[in-house]
Amino acid sequence: MTVSQEIELSGHIIDSGIMTQLFDKVMDMGGNFEILIFDVGKKKTDPSYARLRIAAANREKLRYILSELHRLGARPLEVKDVHVVPAERDRVGSRGFYLTTNHPTDIKVNGEWIPVESIEMDCLIVMEKEAKRALCTPLAKLRKGDLVVVGEQGVMVHYPERPREQSNFEFMHGTVSSERPSVTLIAKIAREIIDVHRKGGKIVLVGGPAIIHTGAAKSVADMVRNGYINVLFAGNALATHDIEYNLFGTSLGMDISTGKPVMGGHKHHIYAINEILRAGSIKQAVDKGIINGGIMYECVKNNVPFVLAGSIRDDGPLPDVITDVIAAQEAMRQQLGGCSMVLMVATLLHSVAVGNCLQSSVKTICVDINPASLTKLMDRGTMQAIGIVSDAGTFFPLLAEQLEMQESEKK
Amino acid sequence: MTVSQEIELSGHIIDSGIMTQLFDKVMDMGGNFEILIFDVGKKKTDPSYARLRIAAANREKLRYILSELHRLGARPLEVKDVHVVPAERDRVGSRGFYLTTNHPTDIKVNGEWIPVESIEMDCLIVMEKEAKRALCTPLAKLRKGDLVVVGEQGVMVHYPERPREQSNFEFMHGTVSSERPSVTLIAKIAREIIDVHRKGGKIVLVGGPAIIHTGAAKSVADMVRNGYINVLFAGNALATHDIEYNLFGTSLGMDISTGKPVMGGHKHHIYAINEILRAGSIKQAVDKGIINGGIMYECVKNNVPFVLAGSIRDDGPLPDVITDVIAAQEAMRQQLGGCSMVLMVATLLHSVAVGNCLQSSVKTICVDINPASLTKLMDRGTMQAIGIVSDAGTFFPLLAEQLEMQESEKK
Amino acid sequence: MTVSQEIELSGHIIDSGIMTQLFDKVMDMGGNFEILIFDVGKKKTDPSYARLRIAAANREKLRYILSELHRLGARPLEVKDVHVVPAERDRVGSRGFYLTTNHPTDIKVNGEWIPVESIEMDCLIVMEKEAKRALCTPLAKLRKGDLVVVGEQGVMVHYPERPREQSNFEFMHGTVSSERPSVTLIAKIAREIIDVHRKGGKIVLVGGPAIIHTGAAKSVADMVRNGYINVLFAGNALATHDIEYNLFGTSLGMDISTGKPVMGGHKHHIYAINEILRAGSIKQAVDKGIINGGIMYECVKNNVPFVLAGSIRDDGPLPDVITDVIAAQEAMRQQLGGCSMVLMVATLLHSVAVGNCLQSSVKTICVDINPASLTKLMDRGTMQAIGIVSDAGTFFPLLAEQLEMQESEKK
Amino acid sequence: MTVSQEIELSGHIIDSGIMTQLFDKVMDMGGNFEILIFDVGKKKTDPSYARLRIAAANREKLRYILSELHRLGARPLEVKDVHVVPAERDRVGSRGFYLTTNHPTDIKVNGEWIPVESIEMDCLIVMEKEAKRALCTPLAKLRKGDLVVVGEQGVMVHYPERPREQSNFEFMHGTVSSERPSVTLIAKIAREIIDVHRKGGKIVLVGGPAIIHTGAAKSVADMVRNGYINVLFAGNALATHDIEYNLFGTSLGMDISTGKPVMGGHKHHIYAINEILRAGSIKQAVDKGIINGGIMYECVKNNVPFVLAGSIRDDGPLPDVITDVIAAQEAMRQQLGGCSMVLMVATLLHSVAVGNCLQSSVKTICVDINPASLTKLMDRGTMQAIGIVSDAGTFFPLLAEQLEMQESEKK
Repeated sequence: MTVSQEIELSGHIIDSGIMTQLFDKVMDMGGNFEILIFDVGKKKTDPSYARLRIAAANREKLRYILSELHRLGARPLEVKDVHVVPAERDRVGSRGFYLTTNHPTDIKVNGEWIPVESIEMDCLIVMEKEAKRALCTPLAKLRKGDLVVVGEQGVMVHYPERPREQSNFEFMHGTVSSERPSVTLIAKIAREIIDVHRKGGKIVLVGGPAIIHTGAAKSVADMVRNGYINVLFAGNALATHDIEYNLFGTSLGMDISTGKPVMGGHKHHIYAINEILRAGSIKQAVDKGIINGGIMYECVKNNVPFVLAGSIRDDGPLPDVITDVIAAQEAMRQQLGGCSMVLMVATLLHSVAVGNCLQSSVKTICVDINPASLTKLMDRGTMQAIGIVSDAGTFFPLLAEQLEMQESEKK
Repeated sequence: MTVSQEIELSGHIIDSGIMTQLFDKVMDMGGNFEILIFDVGKKKTDPSYARLRIAAANREKLRYILSELHRLGARPLEVKDVHVVPAERDRVGSRGFYLTTNHPTDIKVNGEWIPVESIEMDCLIVMEKEAKRALCTPLAKLRKGDLVVVGEQGVMVHYPERPREQSNFEFMHGTVSSERPSVTLIAKIAREIIDVHRKGGKIVLVGGPAIIHTGAAKSVADMVRNGYINVLFAGNALATHDIEYNLFGTSLGMDISTGKPVMGGHKHHIYAINEILRAGSIKQAVDKGIINGGIMYECVKNNVPFVLAGSIRDDGPLPDVITDVIAAQEAMRQQLGGCSMVLMVATLLHSVAVGNCLQSSVKTICVDINPASLTKLMDRGTMQAIGIVSDAGTFFPLLAEQLEMQESEKK
Repeated sequence: MTVSQEIELSGHIIDSGIMTQLFDKVMDMGGNFEILIFDVGKKKTDPSYARLRIAAANREKLRYILSELHRLGARPLEVKDVHVVPAERDRVGSRGFYLTTNHPTDIKVNGEWIPVESIEMDCLIVMEKEAKRALCTPLAKLRKGDLVVVGEQGVMVHYPERPREQSNFEFMHGTVSSERPSVTLIAKIAREIIDVHRKGGKIVLVGGPAIIHTGAAKSVADMVRNGYINVLFAGNALATHDIEYNLFGTSLGMDISTGKPVMGGHKHHIYAINEILRAGSIKQAVDKGIINGGIMYECVKNNVPFVLAGSIRDDGPLPDVITDVIAAQEAMRQQLGGCSMVLMVATLLHSVAVGNCLQSSVKTICVDINPASLTKLMDRGTMQAIGIVSDAGTFFPLLAEQLEMQESEKK
Repeated sequence: MTVSQEIELSGHIIDSGIMTQLFDKVMDMGGNFEILIFDVGKKKTDPSYARLRIAAANREKLRYILSELHRLGARPLEVKDVHVVPAERDRVGSRGFYLTTNHPTDIKVNGEWIPVESIEMDCLIVMEKEAKRALCTPLAKLRKGDLVVVGEQGVMVHYPERPREQSNFEFMHGTVSSERPSVTLIAKIAREIIDVHRKGGKIVLVGGPAIIHTGAAKSVADMVRNGYINVLFAGNALATHDIEYNLFGTSLGMDISTGKPVMGGHKHHIYAINEILRAGSIKQAVDKGIINGGIMYECVKNNVPFVLAGSIRDDGPLPDVITDVIAAQEAMRQQLGGCSMVLMVATLLHSVAVGNCLQSSVKTICVDINPASLTKLMDRGTMQAIGIVSDAGTFFPLLAEQLEMQESEKK
């Protein structure tokens, strides 16, 4: 005895591939569909509208299927208000709580749609009843009594449509390839950065220590000074090696200008940490003139905020490192608010962490020498990322060159 | 005007490659050497003795060269007591502090050699004057007034000699290759594990979440139950996916028994975390019968301690996760004391972190699908590691098979 | 002044994603579309039918767009006979010749559709006028006067539809992941192999030398003997190392049973080649009792044909190696006729080469330790391949186990 | 009953690590040694001399140990003439034939040492009795009656000593790392290329098709025109994509200047091949003005010889491709004679093939995005290679920049 329900979708549902995904899901999950109405946009600028009856063997299966379709933007014909249940304890969600996607989302309260703020994937939605607000809330921040949305009822996801007019990069979303013209791609990234910069957008760099080892620190420091990087996310290692390079000319004991290890170099990274611990913080070390160049120096001098998140392999760490990982996540969320573009280079850990906190509409470019790192980032849900297989040590000098060239052309 | 100093070395300095490294270092750093005495062990069981005069262009250079040779076990003819300086502040070492290697180390106090306890790389040595003890101390644990060893004077490193009688693995130290007979290597690891287990040694597993995704959870749970794993180091992900698998039969929403995604599976990992948060801890979830199988269950049931270290990409996290990374490092150090063997599988972050806290004499086997991960572990100083390029999902079932087979043969 | 043309498509064009790809192509290429008829299959078992008007800025652009849509199975409402032009010279195609996909293809001749035989990607179609046959022909085999199809007119491609009833693997087509349950996948491959074997299907193994280095030779030899491998494609290296292992117990000088290099082992692979050169061929070496085990031995004994294709890094090579690469391609094509399943393990070069000669409907499983190798195979057009990231040395022993277990269960 | 023999070594045997390797070998193989004389060079510029008695359990083992030591340059106190045996047939070596290393080698004939010409690894030594010459001969070129050296007697290997004065790169021999300052390394390579070029040395580029896909063709074409590349080794793919780029602006159908696929682009590579087949050869296509730019064009215009070696995955192939792999090897050997430097970029197959034919004294730099490719090259015996993990598409533009900058500085 099958059960069924009608749903509807609208928008560029064919050419954005949403319709295909919907049919796939239903079939994968053993359901059936009947198309009731299918008004195809006749031209490529017209939206389409579809109404379908979804059927499954029993109520349980139907619920699961509809739950998946919901994530693609499908909704019942008549949408009721969301159902909320107060959290029974701190950090404990009510059973069956709604789990967010990283797409823009609305909830229906008293018959009105209100947007969920700060949307990111794998969180709960907490409704502030009086304030008529809805907040995307990670489990760690949930407090007893918070009104948690349960089930998909009254929740609408705006699945990202494929853009009609392709910008430089759109066509590459979700792709990874080492077989692309590197300099062409770098020129495009430069154009995108300059565009975002001119419009006053915020650009976040998420960087790994290989940036320093491979000799790209100078190019990155230039980008910070020139306003092309507005927030820096990194770990203890990037900051330590950058400071080591400034204090001793080495990174992990290797002279960056010759590529050779130097005498006593193996002590430099710990000695660098020790100097900053003595100064009190990176800022104080800059203020006291102990550090006089490099990425961290430019961040301090140009008021570019940085979040240094701790990891279990940290030496020291530097006094600026946030050793509690949940606190570090929160610090990153604070800085991600309103950002327009994220550039992730040579760090899988931080890239996935930042991807987890990003809305799917933020331009995300990820550069890594290992194609598997890029695939993993997308597998973890950061589908909007553009993956570029390249070497940080050649990528940044060429990017800096392109920025300079294009900036001077535009003037 | 060159300056010079005489040094001496003894032991299997030729065939362990120490002499070669010493000559290399001197030449790399622009120094000169003259061999004064060279009593070569005539047979392969005899130790050798060498006395050399090391010369350099100036005092500064000579000091650097001797500092490097020191790390290979070379020492001045006459060794004076260590020089100690009290730490001026918490977490701030006195300038020029001695930086440890991960090899056994002694310091000379009042003319007597005393061993440095809990040696690991990149730490300071703190002398407890009255107690006649010396402690290897990470910067984070240094307290104001601690007597910190400064300079190499009075410090002697016991550089590891190449073993005369090769055990199963010794010949492979520091090597990585995907071109080895996998089953042969797995059989050897099984033999080593059984040997260590019979002698009452402690075996630590450092594991990544791929163990669960690739379907190896059952084999690892069996190894815990059978006493072949005595301590578990992992992150939030491994524990979460293991519990998700136990509660829902999935890992990251994929049914492990079919390899297919299941309905509603994308919520499972957060729901699994939520259940444990509700229960209070993994142990309580086991006690309440919520979890009734899997790796974490076996750890609880068999009193196998586990350290779950936090990272910035954690969802939740589980209540057992230590979110402060420095606290997590300390928890790992506690458990590493007296361990005989470390098996690292499918996690670069945790492997490097654990390698940082390990003495170079601990048997260390690292399995990863990416050869670059293995190289990086060794580049970071865990030179004793044996790297095996393989897939966790096939490695563990074959290892479990070998353990069973060899165990039954021996009976 | 836009130009336009009507086209039609039918089949499971929505749920197979064909419609989406079609819309994508039109927009990517700057064209426009209007939907004239769209009869959507109401239920998931019903086919759909669509008629569209495709428009572009000029005749040239329209032609290009239609050329792309053609590859997805779209066709003009009225299809005329193919247009053929005789090849002016050996190996020189007439300008504008039709380039094949790897999907089943028909051509219209005198108003009738005839299938193109031995279809594979990137070839020409040669029509044999009297014989009413059409042959897929690589450039290298084209002869002066051959009637070569020019343009898309009269050619119809049967783009593969997504299967309604999913078999074990179908859902994974075109995917690569290291995050899959390895043993589950291996069990499925075993089931598929047994199924194909029972139905009398032909299974081809394309193998790299890592099969021998990683100690999987015995398992593969067993599979050959038990009839699970019916054709072997490999290079000089696999055969040489297999024979070296049989003659000396080593592979590239390493003892497979201990994983250690043996005395004089570096000479073994050349000495092995020399012995076969002396014997005259691998078969003669088997007949004379020089080789008495291993993969090549089992091939000879069980009449399993093998193609050993030469490469520029070959030592020797063995007398059986086909040193002309075009001749080797032809030999592979001969053996691929009628094959049901191809298993590619640990060789990118041979996998891509074989993929180039395969129809898209042949089940293709590719196992490699490097995920990038799998991606590259699919990027090169072998979209039907299922990529599995694993280690040959653990994969084959577990596969052999599964085959034995499942075979005995079925009995 | 042990047997023993005395051997001697001389040169920089300690600091080049030869002595250490010797001791290692003896112990690995279960032998014993006694040091009879050990005159250590007192200063770093003095050579050393050692005489040892090597002992083993039986004659067979002793022979094997001595055979290994031979490869390090150790020799019996009294060296007899080589022993030669005529080849019984074409391509069949006499049993026990001597197998070459890739180090300079002499043989003793009538009491005099004569050098082996064109030394490369894994070949035989053929003595031309009257001509007093010795030729390094691959098995494939051996002819019936050739006088083949058998056993190590009378053969002396000059194991490469570690250079006293380090040039820019020497310190990195045999290393692979992605953690090096890329631009620094590229600047060094540029310096080396300019030095070799000024001294009239021959520089060989071994390149893969990724050079074209990643957009580096222009930089490489410039290097050919400017005389920095004197020989090109590649396959059908590099040449085809280069010509496709010249004819259509695409590489594998992707527009290099935008990174986007173009209309009808999938046909371009086959159409490019067809045009060259029609012209007759690449040179004829250049002469007829069909090709007017790119790498192959510059090779033709600047009389830079190229060897295009066939592989089984070739489409077409181009008429210039040598489809017989043994003929292609020979063509490469011809061009390698007298070359001073080899630059291998983005091709494992060709790099290993060329490495096989190179003497160990030729400067070899290998650039690849995958560190495992570099490791494999060295594992296959090309120990002198310097491995750089980078992206061809960023490497070449930066190299071209450095060449130009350094060249203008020097003027």
